[in-house]
Amino acid sequence: MTFPVKVGIVGLGRWAQVLTRAASKSEKLQIVAGYSRSEEKRSAFQQETGVRAAPDLKTLLADPAITGVILTVPNEQHWPVAVEVAKARKHVYTEKPIANTLDDGLRIEALQREYGVQVVVGHSARLLAGTRLMKQAIERGELGRVAFIEANFSNERALELTPKTWRWYKDKAPGGPLSQLAIHQFDALHYLGGEITEVCSMASKLSPVGAEVDDQSMTLMRFADGKVAYVGSCWTSPGVYAIRVFGSKALMHYEIDFSTWDTPDVIHKTSTLYIQRGKDGYGKRQELAIPQSDMFREELEMFAETCASGQPCELTAHNGNVAVAVVYAALRSIERKGQYVPLSEVMAEAQARVRDQPQKVA
Amino acid sequence: MTFPVKVGIVGLGRWAQVLTRAASKSEKLQIVAGYSRSEEKRSAFQQETGVRAAPDLKTLLADPAITGVILTVPNEQHWPVAVEVAKARKHVYTEKPIANTLDDGLRIEALQREYGVQVVVGHSARLLAGTRLMKQAIERGELGRVAFIEANFSNERALELTPKTWRWYKDKAPGGPLSQLAIHQFDALHYLGGEITEVCSMASKLSPVGAEVDDQSMTLMRFADGKVAYVGSCWTSPGVYAIRVFGSKALMHYEIDFSTWDTPDVIHKTSTLYIQRGKDGYGKRQELAIPQSDMFREELEMFAETCASGQPCELTAHNGNVAVAVVYAALRSIERKGQYVPLSEVMAEAQARVRDQPQKVA
Repeated sequence: MTFPVKVGIVGLGRWAQVLTRAASKSEKLQIVAGYSRSEEKRSAFQQETGVRAAPDLKTLLADPAITGVILTVPNEQHWPVAVEVAKARKHVYTEKPIANTLDDGLRIEALQREYGVQVVVGHSARLLAGTRLMKQAIERGELGRVAFIEANFSNERALELTPKTWRWYKDKAPGGPLSQLAIHQFDALHYLGGEITEVCSMASKLSPVGAEVDDQSMTLMRFADGKVAYVGSCWTSPGVYAIRVFGSKALMHYEIDFSTWDTPDVIHKTSTLYIQRGKDGYGKRQELAIPQSDMFREELEMFAETCASGQPCELTAHNGNVAVAVVYAALRSIERKGQYVPLSEVMAEAQARVRDQPQKVA
Repeated sequence: MTFPVKVGIVGLGRWAQVLTRAASKSEKLQIVAGYSRSEEKRSAFQQETGVRAAPDLKTLLADPAITGVILTVPNEQHWPVAVEVAKARKHVYTEKPIANTLDDGLRIEALQREYGVQVVVGHSARLLAGTRLMKQAIERGELGRVAFIEANFSNERALELTPKTWRWYKDKAPGGPLSQLAIHQFDALHYLGGEITEVCSMASKLSPVGAEVDDQSMTLMRFADGKVAYVGSCWTSPGVYAIRVFGSKALMHYEIDFSTWDTPDVIHKTSTLYIQRGKDGYGKRQELAIPQSDMFREELEMFAETCASGQPCELTAHNGNVAVAVVYAALRSIERKGQYVPLSEVMAEAQARVRDQPQKVA
């Protein structure tokens, strides 16, 4: 494998700059070209990052030095752009969610087989240093039998929505914080807890702004091994990002300062991770050290390794689709007044639709 | 009003000693007689507390100096004993839950009208100092619009159950931690959040001991004003007692060291209560001072005031029945595979049954 691999980036908004900054700290990849439909964004990007902007997508994809392309286009553009990238035999990186609908997500997953490329989905939350340490503790049995997980990801976004912001609309941000914030935790809990089998959910709309979308989301999940989990997401509150894992020998709690989310190299400075063992009350909780890490650089380096090797990494299209399927199962549970919805039901229906229309034009 | 009021106590197990200890610190009430069917317990109680044991319930109830009776008998005995106490025109204090079934709880509530006595239910958790401070902050608008509440009450009990312990059995401890621990939080959230309208729930059984009851419980609730809440209760983990209230201006988090539960006068020493305002991340959370308090002494003093005045206090039979109704709505939701169950449905059905059989013999 030869590093740095050369990659392009398509969609030059705020997030492209966050990722380009993260990539600049890595020796594994180099962003060598960017593209946006907006000429204004192209020139701003070129000026701010020093990376040349391609005049059109075709030109970017024609560059034989580029082995992969990062998509930071709006969610509903993931599928049409991913198809072009895959046809050019470049590996694909999409920001989470893999797509706006499970159907498009499955179509993107199928590109791997059809074009011999890999799709990597930027579910960064599972890469947070504290989450990794919790997973290691679970795996070495330090928590005993894990039975119960609670997670929360909240912020104040719904207090600031206007009809000009895409998150105002149900078709763009289904379930509000469910598809925008809770989805991060669905992937993190899939990582920590294994296969998710069924889901029930409750939502409410309380923000005074009048948006279409709900702004309160609570979801319960059952895992294949019988453990249960809760994911809460309040879109009208100060920021919270927390996971607590309950085991028969110990519980572990991880919480980060949400205001550091966009600057992951300093997250550890104001995070907390503790373990509470046996019957001891929280007075005996033991704080654990959290190493510095950078979830954005790490996800891009995983993509770089995939570009170099052609092999999948942990951030698979399948995992991305599981997280989207939990969102759709939760939406269906809300429609069905709370009923448990099997993930397999949502997944099988989407697979059937995609079989009928594999190459839907967006 | 003349204090101390004189009260009796019926049921002389471990909890009678906790409450007798709490009462001994109060100038508002004096426990002057105890009764248990077990002679062994009667003499042990008399020896340990210095309070005389009555030879039978009739003798205790015949004492004209006694204005109220504390019931610490097993839950299924609340109704038959409460009836005798009410017939003797003494006020009734029951430990939570008000009764093992909602039907019996409503029968106990009806004793108030039938015999002109008051029933006080010892839902102590709402009296915790941090919970009181959260309620005050909500009422003065410091949190803005409250939209979302999370609560947890967990301990390791299910790892220690044996067929000899009553909590092993579904009819005695329905839903396991749902009726044993989560019920405390249902009352605390009713206090903090107002009227609860519907409930959905998920349970699981994971403890290796083989008990009848489930040992994992997660419940979602909707309030009349649209806010939502989660109550989790893991019965196979280290102890946790926590409430987090999310508002548009601030969130507040309260957490106590569960191992101090039985010694409430030291709870504040290892508790935490913080507020997080505006958009600030948790790095800016502000710790708030928690005064010393004693929820057991306070609930008994509320009962003493009721005995002296004949007036109800905050710990009403109705509130006690709401908490039991949430348990039964959650159990029904589990039967119905997660469906939201209106509290009014469960309440109306029990009321109809009790109308048909108001004086059921236990």
